[in-house]
Amino acid sequence: MEPSTLETVLTAVAAGRLTVAEALDRLKPPEVRWDHDRRRRRGFSETVLGTGKTFDQVLEAVETARERPVLVTRVDPAWGPELERRVPDAVHHPVARAVTVGPLPPVRTGPPVAIVTAGTADRPVAEEARLTLRVAGIPTEVVYDVGVAGIHRLFGVLDTLRRARVVICIAGMEGALPGVVAALLAVPVIGVPTSVGLGAHAGGFAPLLTMLNSCAEGLAVVNIDNGFGAARLAQLIWQTAAPPEEA
Amino acid sequence: MEPSTLETVLTAVAAGRLTVAEALDRLKPPEVRWDHDRRRRRGFSETVLGTGKTFDQVLEAVETARERPVLVTRVDPAWGPELERRVPDAVHHPVARAVTVGPLPPVRTGPPVAIVTAGTADRPVAEEARLTLRVAGIPTEVVYDVGVAGIHRLFGVLDTLRRARVVICIAGMEGALPGVVAALLAVPVIGVPTSVGLGAHAGGFAPLLTMLNSCAEGLAVVNIDNGFGAARLAQLIWQTAAPPEEA
Amino acid sequence: MEPSTLETVLTAVAAGRLTVAEALDRLKPPEVRWDHDRRRRRGFSETVLGTGKTFDQVLEAVETARERPVLVTRVDPAWGPELERRVPDAVHHPVARAVTVGPLPPVRTGPPVAIVTAGTADRPVAEEARLTLRVAGIPTEVVYDVGVAGIHRLFGVLDTLRRARVVICIAGMEGALPGVVAALLAVPVIGVPTSVGLGAHAGGFAPLLTMLNSCAEGLAVVNIDNGFGAARLAQLIWQTAAPPEEA
Amino acid sequence: MEPSTLETVLTAVAAGRLTVAEALDRLKPPEVRWDHDRRRRRGFSETVLGTGKTFDQVLEAVETARERPVLVTRVDPAWGPELERRVPDAVHHPVARAVTVGPLPPVRTGPPVAIVTAGTADRPVAEEARLTLRVAGIPTEVVYDVGVAGIHRLFGVLDTLRRARVVICIAGMEGALPGVVAALLAVPVIGVPTSVGLGAHAGGFAPLLTMLNSCAEGLAVVNIDNGFGAARLAQLIWQTAAPPEEA
Amino acid sequence: MEPSTLETVLTAVAAGRLTVAEALDRLKPPEVRWDHDRRRRRGFSETVLGTGKTFDQVLEAVETARERPVLVTRVDPAWGPELERRVPDAVHHPVARAVTVGPLPPVRTGPPVAIVTAGTADRPVAEEARLTLRVAGIPTEVVYDVGVAGIHRLFGVLDTLRRARVVICIAGMEGALPGVVAALLAVPVIGVPTSVGLGAHAGGFAPLLTMLNSCAEGLAVVNIDNGFGAARLAQLIWQTAAPPEEA
Amino acid sequence: MEPSTLETVLTAVAAGRLTVAEALDRLKPPEVRWDHDRRRRRGFSETVLGTGKTFDQVLEAVETARERPVLVTRVDPAWGPELERRVPDAVHHPVARAVTVGPLPPVRTGPPVAIVTAGTADRPVAEEARLTLRVAGIPTEVVYDVGVAGIHRLFGVLDTLRRARVVICIAGMEGALPGVVAALLAVPVIGVPTSVGLGAHAGGFAPLLTMLNSCAEGLAVVNIDNGFGAARLAQLIWQTAAPPEEA
Amino acid sequence: MEPSTLETVLTAVAAGRLTVAEALDRLKPPEVRWDHDRRRRRGFSETVLGTGKTFDQVLEAVETARERPVLVTRVDPAWGPELERRVPDAVHHPVARAVTVGPLPPVRTGPPVAIVTAGTADRPVAEEARLTLRVAGIPTEVVYDVGVAGIHRLFGVLDTLRRARVVICIAGMEGALPGVVAALLAVPVIGVPTSVGLGAHAGGFAPLLTMLNSCAEGLAVVNIDNGFGAARLAQLIWQTAAPPEEA
Amino acid sequence: MEPSTLETVLTAVAAGRLTVAEALDRLKPPEVRWDHDRRRRRGFSETVLGTGKTFDQVLEAVETARERPVLVTRVDPAWGPELERRVPDAVHHPVARAVTVGPLPPVRTGPPVAIVTAGTADRPVAEEARLTLRVAGIPTEVVYDVGVAGIHRLFGVLDTLRRARVVICIAGMEGALPGVVAALLAVPVIGVPTSVGLGAHAGGFAPLLTMLNSCAEGLAVVNIDNGFGAARLAQLIWQTAAPPEEA
Repeated sequence: MEPSTLETVLTAVAAGRLTVAEALDRLKPPEVRWDHDRRRRRGFSETVLGTGKTFDQVLEAVETARERPVLVTRVDPAWGPELERRVPDAVHHPVARAVTVGPLPPVRTGPPVAIVTAGTADRPVAEEARLTLRVAGIPTEVVYDVGVAGIHRLFGVLDTLRRARVVICIAGMEGALPGVVAALLAVPVIGVPTSVGLGAHAGGFAPLLTMLNSCAEGLAVVNIDNGFGAARLAQLIWQTAAPPEEA
Repeated sequence: MEPSTLETVLTAVAAGRLTVAEALDRLKPPEVRWDHDRRRRRGFSETVLGTGKTFDQVLEAVETARERPVLVTRVDPAWGPELERRVPDAVHHPVARAVTVGPLPPVRTGPPVAIVTAGTADRPVAEEARLTLRVAGIPTEVVYDVGVAGIHRLFGVLDTLRRARVVICIAGMEGALPGVVAALLAVPVIGVPTSVGLGAHAGGFAPLLTMLNSCAEGLAVVNIDNGFGAARLAQLIWQTAAPPEEA
Repeated sequence: MEPSTLETVLTAVAAGRLTVAEALDRLKPPEVRWDHDRRRRRGFSETVLGTGKTFDQVLEAVETARERPVLVTRVDPAWGPELERRVPDAVHHPVARAVTVGPLPPVRTGPPVAIVTAGTADRPVAEEARLTLRVAGIPTEVVYDVGVAGIHRLFGVLDTLRRARVVICIAGMEGALPGVVAALLAVPVIGVPTSVGLGAHAGGFAPLLTMLNSCAEGLAVVNIDNGFGAARLAQLIWQTAAPPEEA
Repeated sequence: MEPSTLETVLTAVAAGRLTVAEALDRLKPPEVRWDHDRRRRRGFSETVLGTGKTFDQVLEAVETARERPVLVTRVDPAWGPELERRVPDAVHHPVARAVTVGPLPPVRTGPPVAIVTAGTADRPVAEEARLTLRVAGIPTEVVYDVGVAGIHRLFGVLDTLRRARVVICIAGMEGALPGVVAALLAVPVIGVPTSVGLGAHAGGFAPLLTMLNSCAEGLAVVNIDNGFGAARLAQLIWQTAAPPEEA
Repeated sequence: MEPSTLETVLTAVAAGRLTVAEALDRLKPPEVRWDHDRRRRRGFSETVLGTGKTFDQVLEAVETARERPVLVTRVDPAWGPELERRVPDAVHHPVARAVTVGPLPPVRTGPPVAIVTAGTADRPVAEEARLTLRVAGIPTEVVYDVGVAGIHRLFGVLDTLRRARVVICIAGMEGALPGVVAALLAVPVIGVPTSVGLGAHAGGFAPLLTMLNSCAEGLAVVNIDNGFGAARLAQLIWQTAAPPEEA
Repeated sequence: MEPSTLETVLTAVAAGRLTVAEALDRLKPPEVRWDHDRRRRRGFSETVLGTGKTFDQVLEAVETARERPVLVTRVDPAWGPELERRVPDAVHHPVARAVTVGPLPPVRTGPPVAIVTAGTADRPVAEEARLTLRVAGIPTEVVYDVGVAGIHRLFGVLDTLRRARVVICIAGMEGALPGVVAALLAVPVIGVPTSVGLGAHAGGFAPLLTMLNSCAEGLAVVNIDNGFGAARLAQLIWQTAAPPEEA
Repeated sequence: MEPSTLETVLTAVAAGRLTVAEALDRLKPPEVRWDHDRRRRRGFSETVLGTGKTFDQVLEAVETARERPVLVTRVDPAWGPELERRVPDAVHHPVARAVTVGPLPPVRTGPPVAIVTAGTADRPVAEEARLTLRVAGIPTEVVYDVGVAGIHRLFGVLDTLRRARVVICIAGMEGALPGVVAALLAVPVIGVPTSVGLGAHAGGFAPLLTMLNSCAEGLAVVNIDNGFGAARLAQLIWQTAAPPEEA
Repeated sequence: MEPSTLETVLTAVAAGRLTVAEALDRLKPPEVRWDHDRRRRRGFSETVLGTGKTFDQVLEAVETARERPVLVTRVDPAWGPELERRVPDAVHHPVARAVTVGPLPPVRTGPPVAIVTAGTADRPVAEEARLTLRVAGIPTEVVYDVGVAGIHRLFGVLDTLRRARVVICIAGMEGALPGVVAALLAVPVIGVPTSVGLGAHAGGFAPLLTMLNSCAEGLAVVNIDNGFGAARLAQLIWQTAAPPEEA
């Protein structure tokens, strides 16, 4: 804590302008510390991750943000409507398990980030990725349910994937799709293992290992269910060809 | 130990026909106990697994077998030539890490068991499977190096696989091939994960998990590097359509 | 997305026949993509796996299926009655955690697939396997609760198992039964580890490892609790001796 | 196998132009199957991975390649000099554990791929990445030994990293460096965990988990020690801004 | 059980002063066995860990304690108010998931134990540590949310950390902060991994491995979420420079 | 199924004495198969394990048992009262999570089985062990809460342990107590790891590994939380010195 | 170190009777600390475990032992002959990987400890157990190679097992034998998993988990390959019926 | 690389003062980057870890160090004599697997760091810790072989441990000693798990988990076999009471 802050508060207590309880509350350390420098340094502002936070901490984070839009990920289903009620401009996106606050920027022109899932159940992860890119103004195109158990479905959408600048490929179960997709394309592919599976799936470790061990060259892997992280990586790659300054 | 055996030995010692050392040697428990009933019960005779055995134990097993041919798997590279020297009719198969003893039966007619590998390095496992089936008189056809990183190579051999009665599909690395193959065929497919891999491959657990979690329906899985077990399973399935009695 | 579809929708919007909201809804990517080719390619049609899907996605899948019967596996207990209410011909099978839609085919003649469980608690997995085979018209015979802790119970049903063309053997706890069963039979045995267990059971990994490491030759293994996958594998093996065309 | 090939060989045997042994040799399945289409499809030709292969298989692969240069990775230390002796234009790169065959293309202009390691012992992985990019004609800049235990060393090279188009960050031990680096940059960062470590390092799983769980947004992860895969991913990202056709 | 106790009870039963049921109740073994010697031996009294206990067992423990204050950790949220109602001087600390009973000692003078967290969600662990030190009369200073994804936030509080005698550093996700902090300081640092994370976080094993493998020299590690254990270790280190006798 | 049973049922259907539904119900395979031979073979009758069973299956098991008393372990808390209501002589033991049905045998004379726990929270496992031994008529003596964090508490009860014929030692957390106890005694000690723990406790795998790796010679280990199995092992050891026939 | 020892040495140095180097050598802490009290306390003397020790440390241990015989386990194959050469009465037992020093006691009368192995390769573990019991004067009977893949072999030796007081059952691969054996007997059975296996055997963890999860009641488990520990446990159980004093 | 360095080299090449090969050599990035600031920042200078480095890299590190003494840990046994030959003042410490270069500072006065091992085989880890503290001038006292299997040996050295300011406690096998020691002392205890063990020891993970889950409060844990890290932590704690400036 800054000594000057402490002095100010103690002076106020001494003068009777603050009760001891009020003073203690002022002097407690801040629970949320925004990285206000992130946009300058990385090209995007900080995001609020809901996991492990209380509702009040999320609310404090949203209210102390200096920029708009704010993206809140992994929100408890019950928090979405409550945030919409208490925060102006908040919009709940239930499938993506996210909330956005403030107007979104226009979508930029250029080849999209293709988001492809192996199964229908992978949709929440795909939506988190799509929304994260939408908030950043990056164009996307989504294709669902083209898993390797019916591989001709993949060949039917191959042209869509070839037109993309980057591909995010999301798969649970055995997670073989990203390797098969990467082996067919000349653009970067980001594999996202999901926790959708049964039995020896180990909460997503099975598809994670599949992707890490893929014999397809040049497959990027991110954490299980991490649609947000995949989107950020896709954004950075997308901007390699079209830097933010050009927008 | 049978009481009668013990009595016989003790009598011989008492009569001076056996020294104490000889008696101890006769009374020591046998280290190898053949399952002579296996052919009647299961349709094939017992195999000698070299792993963990000493050379003398393997030799004892081969010499006490009542049937020919005998298959010895997982033989130490140094044992092959030694067995060829000491056992009549022994043949060393170095790639398959195996030895056969005695004449092999003729190969039966019918659709073959196709053996397909994802990589060149999976060849020892494929050879163990092929030799096991050869010893049982089951026809085989082998196809190497058609991994998913160049999936068109698989489509080039699809007709071969469709003509098979059973397919054994062997893959290390991420082990995605068996699921992709199974999804394209109407015959039983047996996946064999191998220990060929790098990094987070975990000695073959990565492709093992991939195969167990495959979204392709009806894929049989066996242990890592278990070409022998895959062949036995293929034999039992092959004989479903052509029982041994018909041979 | 097909360019032609896009053009049709845009034309309709331009003509005022569609609102923007309606157009967006039409243009959203389909969440379920049926593999309509699966029957021709593999001998059975695609199944709807309930895991990870929403009720609406399951409903969409059932309604867009081109064939009957449809099998839905791993349905939420609450969905069964709701599907029966909303889908004609839907039947909920609560023990098997499944729903079938449409008339089932007649049961074919021939040696059955025997389904044997080690414990009473393995019944849901056995029922999923039995129902899957029933939907495919394959005959079955079920035997419960013959675990190795009272191995004479197994010998009492051995004749039943010997009459089968394929055996599915389901076991939780230490999962020793499939190896013991396989060692006594001359037909293919499929081991299914289950998540029924205590302590160091690791959610079914303990019996899974037991089956993979079995010293009984020729045991096929599928994923934990995967009664459906075991049934599909059994069907493919069963049809090896009696191809679907012969039915 | 092609029926025509078989017929040709059998005819030659019948005519006495081939012995049975020669015929068997001709009819054995090829062990190496080149993916000659890879350059057209993915923008780079296939690489020969030495792991698990015999020397003869590697030699066959190099000799049947249709393109130059060929990159051979993970070569046994003893093979390098032998390949140099037997293959024209082969060059052994011992630190990178690789061999290149044929003249390398010129290095293209543009911002380099920065390759940064946390420790001195990570150098072989860095060299494999550098050589892979060199073979592809992508410019690189290498920085060694800037681990987080002396984080000011990182700040000393930050300008170098900011000038790069992509960063490959290699770290063993706890693997914290890639997350710290990514958090400071606006370009894509690829984390490569290495097997350099002690105790509970688990062969590289510890830094692998660190990178996957990084709270730095947009970090791409590849397999343990996979310098080659990181380079291929970096190449695909680099070409996003400068497609191969422009070279 | 002491023979004398048994005799007393039996005598009372014989005399009709106790019913059999009352006697059985008296003779049942005590469920809680206080380590009354702990303060003399270790410098602090025993703590009541709520995990796995029933409410009645916790209550019995509190009521049979010979000293005040008593610290109860990991209390069920519902137990706090109930303990406040039934035990004089009990105070519930909901964020720390703890209850204290009896007056706390004054805070000693000297450099504080700094408690720093990587994220907002790590606060309960930090509070448990802070309260444990408060109960022992050790001064603390808390700093929240200075994770490595915005490392300049750490540099902003470095002076605070340098003034501390010991630092407790709490981090979930990839757990890189304690290593980075330790590398910058000349005082002992205690790393506490937390269960706050996503995907391949493995319930806190990921940050645990990160801290154990840290290349920063001299980092102490305690169990996942173990704010209490970190505080006890910090107390013992703190007292190295200022033994309890000096207080 | 027995052919004779099938014939009887079909005849009854043909005669109109059974409806088809009734016939199907009679012909369904029995779900519970008692091992009525267990007492003769092993010295104790079969137990009903509640885990994974439905209430109806447990009820069927209890009602078809040929002997009394019956022990039912791991019963759902809600089932206890229901079984007491529906089954004569059923008694619910909530701490032991068990139900007994029928009168218990008298307790035999002889040195008891000592049951000692490291913590208060290990009580349910201790109670399951105590009750299992009580049902078998084996004398027990229970000592709670003597963990190694206050090792003098152990020395206080050492005489009790030395008087026992067998010791069951139950411990969660790090599970060090059984090794320390075994090292002090000349009687067999059975270690039972429990799932009571925090953080890196891994559901009881931590104390399990501790006990398996103990440097104390001659420590028997059973599964996590397996108070029942420990009791059965203790009973078999106890009877080594006092066979059931002597009772 | 004892102050008196230190004083003696310093006095000798001062008097010139010891050089500084000699004094340092005398004052260095002893590396081996015999537990001379073990026989009184536990009924057997301490054993020397070779693992991790240097030859000199083993030699020091043997030479400082106060009792005979001494058992040394896990000796390096090269140490056996060297110990025989340097220590009077030392005998090397190469299969058991052990050395005994001094005359062995007579074998006591009574039912033996039966030692049964599932495979031929488990023999070293069986020999370690047999020798440990021999050194303690406990009678044994050994039966090899009766694994569950040919379960009739087990029934052939069942009478032998029923005559034993305790059974040690040793198995690698899937480790199912101990559970099957225990389910057939009324005496305590000790399961010893071994590291003999292939693929997903995980160095013996697969059979270890099998034994821990066995549905056979009352199976004791010890560490992987721990023939010594199994023997010590068997000895303690054996002595329950025949205390050492009675010998 | 600094632009100025590059310019200088290029100028020299242009002037013919450097060949191209010499220039390339000068321009290659340095492989070792000393953290010369470490002493000022942390109170001790950087150490050279031998793991994963080549001999030449270790030599370069030693030669470019600006301070003496230098400590090199985890040196290959063959490197010690070679370093003694090539580096003035180098001393090889084979048991500690370390080399020191330059004169060591005097040992400071004050209570020592006690180093206690559970087994004789843990000595190399103890020696690494002792030497690291010796190089830092911290007094130590070493006690070997007081494991919990003969716990009275621990009580015999308790006075030694109580006189210490910090205790390092090293244990393999089940690793119970540090928890037992910590529970008896009022000073900080640092637990070091070692890789000495058998069977399910998992390379040291078993004792690591034991220490992390210890119910003894306030036990610090470091990585497996990390005697060096334990010593650094002990040094920082020791200096809490006696800062380096006071020396």
